[in-house]
Amino acid sequence: MNKRLMLAGFALALGAGYSLTAFSQVKPEVLVKQRQAAMTLQGKYFGPMAGMAQGKVPYNADTVAFNTAMLDALSRMPWDGFAESTKGEKSAALPAVWSEPAKVKQAIDNFQSAVQALVKVSRGGDEASQKAAIAAVGKTCGGCHQDFRQKQN
Amino acid sequence: MNKRLMLAGFALALGAGYSLTAFSQVKPEVLVKQRQAAMTLQGKYFGPMAGMAQGKVPYNADTVAFNTAMLDALSRMPWDGFAESTKGEKSAALPAVWSEPAKVKQAIDNFQSAVQALVKVSRGGDEASQKAAIAAVGKTCGGCHQDFRQKQN
Repeated sequence: MNKRLMLAGFALALGAGYSLTAFSQVKPEVLVKQRQAAMTLQGKYFGPMAGMAQGKVPYNADTVAFNTAMLDALSRMPWDGFAESTKGEKSAALPAVWSEPAKVKQAIDNFQSAVQALVKVSRGGDEASQKAAIAAVGKTCGGCHQDFRQKQN
Repeated sequence: MNKRLMLAGFALALGAGYSLTAFSQVKPEVLVKQRQAAMTLQGKYFGPMAGMAQGKVPYNADTVAFNTAMLDALSRMPWDGFAESTKGEKSAALPAVWSEPAKVKQAIDNFQSAVQALVKVSRGGDEASQKAAIAAVGKTCGGCHQDFRQKQN
């Protein structure tokens, strides 16, 4: 019950990544810093859950609930940072981010849908369903990085 | 109604900043990067609201609702990054962060309480009450930076 209403509370946010108007006066280097900050924090909260799904970290239901709530918010944060104005900035983003907007939008949608599926099972769901939902989120991270981020060393 | 239940959904998170166990194996430099990322994003979402409260940016109710929802999550993120292990890392944090833990806890509590008061009026509240709540959050940011962060140029 709570989680459904929490989603309702966030509902207005889902499309916000595509509305860049409010950020049009933010300097490109600041936009890059902000989007990288959001990715850093996605890693902070997703990392331990990925470890649990892979059996490398002991499963902890409270951590899944909390980290998923954080990831729910974070999954809405990076996208407006990929404004056209940032094309020339130094970052790991590949040119395809700007040349293939429909594919980018699909990749974001896949990620946000997977996160919302995890939100649904993150409180009250059993361990197996949570681990499956975590793994599904991980796939969508990788799917986007594969096409739109420089290979990491 | 939604907002109250959203708070309930987040309730387990409120004390999480003080539970460092899960992060004890994270490298100090990573903890610093993560806490700075959270501060960067607090700036991203609080900045435009501060501008509205000061009359420098046109008031927009949707932006207040969305940015406050993001700030709600972000207000829980930086604190576990100030682990003892990070004392020697280069950052703007002053030694008082570690020598005055009770004062730090109070400053965090003040900030989180002000954010929760903003959450309450962020959907359905009128413009004046929202702007007052935004200004109150701003004071708690400054209060903490005053005592625990090096002066910025």
